[in-house]
Amino acid sequence: MDQEYLIVSAADLRAYVVRFLRRFDVPAEDAHIAAEVLVAADLRGIESHGVIRLQSYYGFRLQQGLIDPHASLTVLHETPATLALDGGNGLGQPIAYRAMTRCIEKARETGVALVTVRNSNHYGIAGYYAMMALPHQMIGLSLTNSQPLVVPTYGRQAMVGTNPIAIAVPARHERPFVLDMATSVVPIGRVTVHQKQGLPIPLGWAVNAEGVPTTDPNEVVGGRGAVMPLGGTAEHRGYKGYGLGVMVDILCGVLSGAAFGMHVGHPEHGGAANIGHFFAAIRIDAFRDLADFTADMDQMIRELKESPKAKGEERIYIAGEKEYELAEYRQAHGIPLHVTTVAMLKKVGDEVGVPFDLA
Amino acid sequence: MDQEYLIVSAADLRAYVVRFLRRFDVPAEDAHIAAEVLVAADLRGIESHGVIRLQSYYGFRLQQGLIDPHASLTVLHETPATLALDGGNGLGQPIAYRAMTRCIEKARETGVALVTVRNSNHYGIAGYYAMMALPHQMIGLSLTNSQPLVVPTYGRQAMVGTNPIAIAVPARHERPFVLDMATSVVPIGRVTVHQKQGLPIPLGWAVNAEGVPTTDPNEVVGGRGAVMPLGGTAEHRGYKGYGLGVMVDILCGVLSGAAFGMHVGHPEHGGAANIGHFFAAIRIDAFRDLADFTADMDQMIRELKESPKAKGEERIYIAGEKEYELAEYRQAHGIPLHVTTVAMLKKVGDEVGVPFDLA
Repeated sequence: MDQEYLIVSAADLRAYVVRFLRRFDVPAEDAHIAAEVLVAADLRGIESHGVIRLQSYYGFRLQQGLIDPHASLTVLHETPATLALDGGNGLGQPIAYRAMTRCIEKARETGVALVTVRNSNHYGIAGYYAMMALPHQMIGLSLTNSQPLVVPTYGRQAMVGTNPIAIAVPARHERPFVLDMATSVVPIGRVTVHQKQGLPIPLGWAVNAEGVPTTDPNEVVGGRGAVMPLGGTAEHRGYKGYGLGVMVDILCGVLSGAAFGMHVGHPEHGGAANIGHFFAAIRIDAFRDLADFTADMDQMIRELKESPKAKGEERIYIAGEKEYELAEYRQAHGIPLHVTTVAMLKKVGDEVGVPFDLA
Repeated sequence: MDQEYLIVSAADLRAYVVRFLRRFDVPAEDAHIAAEVLVAADLRGIESHGVIRLQSYYGFRLQQGLIDPHASLTVLHETPATLALDGGNGLGQPIAYRAMTRCIEKARETGVALVTVRNSNHYGIAGYYAMMALPHQMIGLSLTNSQPLVVPTYGRQAMVGTNPIAIAVPARHERPFVLDMATSVVPIGRVTVHQKQGLPIPLGWAVNAEGVPTTDPNEVVGGRGAVMPLGGTAEHRGYKGYGLGVMVDILCGVLSGAAFGMHVGHPEHGGAANIGHFFAAIRIDAFRDLADFTADMDQMIRELKESPKAKGEERIYIAGEKEYELAEYRQAHGIPLHVTTVAMLKKVGDEVGVPFDLA
């Protein structure tokens, strides 16, 4: 562990991300929001959406003028409980943070509010924005579309993003329920990890160039194949995952007026991404007494966790539980950055004049 | 086909269901709503939620006084965009129909509305109520919880219902997108079908009494095992399906104040079911021009359908497409009722004094 990982504090890592983004003229407040969201991913163990993307998803686009650091959020349509925004091709994290903030404000008045955003960029982990509702004793929902990576059932070309669904629900003594899931079986990065280790992938994760499920990661990576929707094959009801992915794309892409399906831009490629997001905030006490609700949440969580375990298993988890535990540990003991990530950050830092000097 | 099935018209079948329910003192309007929803399932090819349940889910409960045919819907809480209702242990279909009607009315004012219902019963196909939004050019969402049939990941006891998610979205020239899916891999009925045919089930559908995935349907049916959440095993990310099932239970059971998890009553058993529902209606023109939205829906649907097919496959489907085609065919040519279903309906009809006399 010690040789392969550099342990850094969340605060130091955030401060570095802020310096890095400030270098590209990102306003201080926006840089702080983006740093908070990126490091939250590393704290929660979702490294694929953390600082590893600092250059490839954000720095690169800022450098190339593909993200406008001074974009403003404009209102396209508004009703008492809905708001349609245009992100002006700004950085995804501050756009999403402000959209969810307004969603929560509106829900306070009307019980529920929905906010769509078009013309945005990759916003990091979907769960971050859903969790913003928790201190307000609301249920938060956060969806985004993404570049096409997933095949429709019976297809062979990636037509749908990994389009995550995130929902956060407060409990009383128990930790909140926080589901944050891609609607594909796995992200493409999981397949790449198997390829690098020379291991086969389970049948049902991905298809090859002919659209046939394969166990060979070499037939999948590099755009040769594509990952499958949650469920996998039709026999295992992969068309449900495909349906969920399209549902997210409808709410984020079509309803907002953003790009959808095969038209959503890849964060590492040129051109505007025109990613769309969808947020909801639901005031719990609009439906029932808050204390009754959180007591029932505690009961539901405990009953699930205390139910009989499968042979050989010792624990049943609640969505978000592992991530809360890991975030608490890493907040106290630091975040392990793999040496390859550190080398990448050092190289990029030197190139852009913001040396990565965390020790 | 001719020997194994009786072909009946949708209108005749509806009229029979009305007579049957009227026999149990269900008000005419409520009987018509329930008949409409039940026969819609048979039209759409979801026979498991059609007239096959007439006695076991509804007649039985009405006979035993387990459903109150004269229940009224009462308002527990209301805000501009939300409504919490109590179904008074009435028949699920008229409760859900009226709840969704009010949801649509409220959404017209505020752009979006959410309605929860507690103290209800099995409401048939979730998709029916989501589709009620379509003629209003709204997106409709319909969720319900159900009796526990699904194991949590790493568990061995059914703790979660098959808790469906249904969403309906209008297009312009193309058929609407209608996703109506249980959050389990399959319903328990699918396992029973394999058992009766003496066939193994695919690994990843269900677990045995020890919580271990099995291919033997005899280890599953009769409450010996349980079905798995969408995704199946943890390796195939079944914990996402488990998370979705719990999400539906939170919105339907906990938020409404209904029963949840292991406490939801089985429609074929005694006692109040206390099922909960959750509905949403979203006015599309609150977010963007309706014509632009429906044109984009058409484009999305066509691009998915026209994308390259997997080897050996000829067609990519859109959620709801097969059901629309089947419903059109059966509306014109009649609904095939299996001889075993006909025999059951005749037997029950004779017992309750409403002879099943369709020819």
